[in-house]
Amino acid sequence: MVLDSGGYGLKLSARKSKTSIRDIGECPLIERIRKVVDRPDPRVYLGIGDDAAVIDIATDQFLLITTDALVEKIHFKLDYFTFHQIGWRSMAANLSDIAAMAGIARHAVVSIAARGVLPVRAVEELYRGMDEVAGRFGVTIVGGDTTGSERDLFLSITVIGVVEKELLTTRAGARVGDSIYVTGRLGGAHAGMKILTGGGKTGEGVSDDLIDKHLRPLPRLSEARYLRTHFFISSMIDVSDGLASEVNHICKNSSVGAEIFEKDIPLAYGIEEFAVQHGEKPIPYALNGGEDFELLFTARAEEVDNAKGDFENRFGIALTRVGDVVRRSKGIQLIQSGGARSALTPQGWDHFSCH
Amino acid sequence: MVLDSGGYGLKLSARKSKTSIRDIGECPLIERIRKVVDRPDPRVYLGIGDDAAVIDIATDQFLLITTDALVEKIHFKLDYFTFHQIGWRSMAANLSDIAAMAGIARHAVVSIAARGVLPVRAVEELYRGMDEVAGRFGVTIVGGDTTGSERDLFLSITVIGVVEKELLTTRAGARVGDSIYVTGRLGGAHAGMKILTGGGKTGEGVSDDLIDKHLRPLPRLSEARYLRTHFFISSMIDVSDGLASEVNHICKNSSVGAEIFEKDIPLAYGIEEFAVQHGEKPIPYALNGGEDFELLFTARAEEVDNAKGDFENRFGIALTRVGDVVRRSKGIQLIQSGGARSALTPQGWDHFSCH
Repeated sequence: MVLDSGGYGLKLSARKSKTSIRDIGECPLIERIRKVVDRPDPRVYLGIGDDAAVIDIATDQFLLITTDALVEKIHFKLDYFTFHQIGWRSMAANLSDIAAMAGIARHAVVSIAARGVLPVRAVEELYRGMDEVAGRFGVTIVGGDTTGSERDLFLSITVIGVVEKELLTTRAGARVGDSIYVTGRLGGAHAGMKILTGGGKTGEGVSDDLIDKHLRPLPRLSEARYLRTHFFISSMIDVSDGLASEVNHICKNSSVGAEIFEKDIPLAYGIEEFAVQHGEKPIPYALNGGEDFELLFTARAEEVDNAKGDFENRFGIALTRVGDVVRRSKGIQLIQSGGARSALTPQGWDHFSCH
Repeated sequence: MVLDSGGYGLKLSARKSKTSIRDIGECPLIERIRKVVDRPDPRVYLGIGDDAAVIDIATDQFLLITTDALVEKIHFKLDYFTFHQIGWRSMAANLSDIAAMAGIARHAVVSIAARGVLPVRAVEELYRGMDEVAGRFGVTIVGGDTTGSERDLFLSITVIGVVEKELLTTRAGARVGDSIYVTGRLGGAHAGMKILTGGGKTGEGVSDDLIDKHLRPLPRLSEARYLRTHFFISSMIDVSDGLASEVNHICKNSSVGAEIFEKDIPLAYGIEEFAVQHGEKPIPYALNGGEDFELLFTARAEEVDNAKGDFENRFGIALTRVGDVVRRSKGIQLIQSGGARSALTPQGWDHFSCH
């Protein structure tokens, strides 16, 4: 989906490989890039491969840096997004990466490339959307670059944050015996996108919630800080590509396996009804839907149990145990209600993505 | 030049302004964006409007953040650039912004959006170019985002650096009585681009130097540190849009005027010959050519004189006094050899740019 066709007039020696980035997909591409740029740097605690890079800047804190690019026609279409919404979602996605490291987001820089006919008001709305969600978390936009584009609109946001060294949480660290948790409910953002691209409108009851979940996601920055300061989180990631993808990232980075119980996955309100209307099952929305920007983490069940009630009261969202960390040799499995097991492999809508 | 034509299917109320970003140009656009995102933040020492944002992160250091976007067909064409060269130039431009603050560049994150048919080797070459120039200055690429694009290639680089609080140098601070200096020689990069876009090739003697100046510029990071640690620099900027533009930025930010002596402007070797061949004058290449990535700064002449000899020996490039800072009411003037004066206004090739 992400890697489209076309023809680059590229001058490469005929003997050299013509393998394209679409041929290999995003994950292997990132691995190739990592090999090119990999150089030892004692200041880099964690480079390419987690939600954010982690830099050693002070005795007690790490600096976090994360960046995301959004491209017209690939990530959004101007037919059904307002500029305010594009700005909001882009910034929220970056802030969510800082949340996943249990960090405090601080500042953002924004690059935009747009055609000259774009109304100034549209650019203002784009920045207003970014600034509105950033402002909720005390994040300020401190710089950027504005330039021209012959056709498509490009947007790139970089967010920096900080985290106390002892609170840093990465994708690596899940231990056998931990349980797996998610905040909030899953699948809503993808259903919302489907309603929108299918010509759906607001004002249709429960659909509004799903659309809003897609258009105005809220990064779980406060929730992550609350959780990490109340008990030890052994690994964490944000749910940007669906539960299946994120569980696989955690398992790969932590060298463990996982068992996910299908019946325990918290589905967004309205998803079951929506799926039935479309002749679909609701579970794939949560497994592969993406962009929910909830948190998925691993911790000891007894420690989470102590904090769960207060967390849910305070933030008004669920904290749900969806499975357990098991030995790597047991694989990564989805256990259905009847007890049947299947491999939990990332698939579907966003399978090219590597986040 | 940067702001191209086309039609956005934008749903805006008919009563609202349809003024486009091309109508107002980049500087006023940035001003409008600044108004949208401006929020007080005690941690932000300097936000939108200098070469890099300046963040208060520690008692003795500032964090610097700068970002630049490059777009195919706007900033480069794949006909005459290799991917290695695109990578090199993009990274060099960002590092140059850190140099302009007298900072030490540390890390970079890179977003790229490309069509799926792009060969993996091309992406590797792009990163190799970025990494090669970054590596010369101890800068590591620590993260990024790779995604699809329906047509044009888009590249966004964010570089972070640090600077001791007492060494930070900005565009503001030039004082009446200071002189104005540039490192190296000017105009070469633009001539090199002209040779390339005109179908010129390497292997034509002096043209090689001009082409190389365009394709493989070296940011003046070490030079800026040397200068700033040897005497007080009251203001500094990198020459990314030509001498005229940068002098105007310094004057505007410092509330002063300037007198630039045309005869003293150090022209790149080969420029005079090249200009004559094309029936042009050489001076506009230096005044408006851009992308030389030299440093322009203001300081007391007697202090610079003490360091000049050692600087030129050490770095093998010239350090040239090109003019003086004067009272604001005297304006910003170019003084020709015969004594004739004219207003030094940014014009020509890159007049939309606001850097």
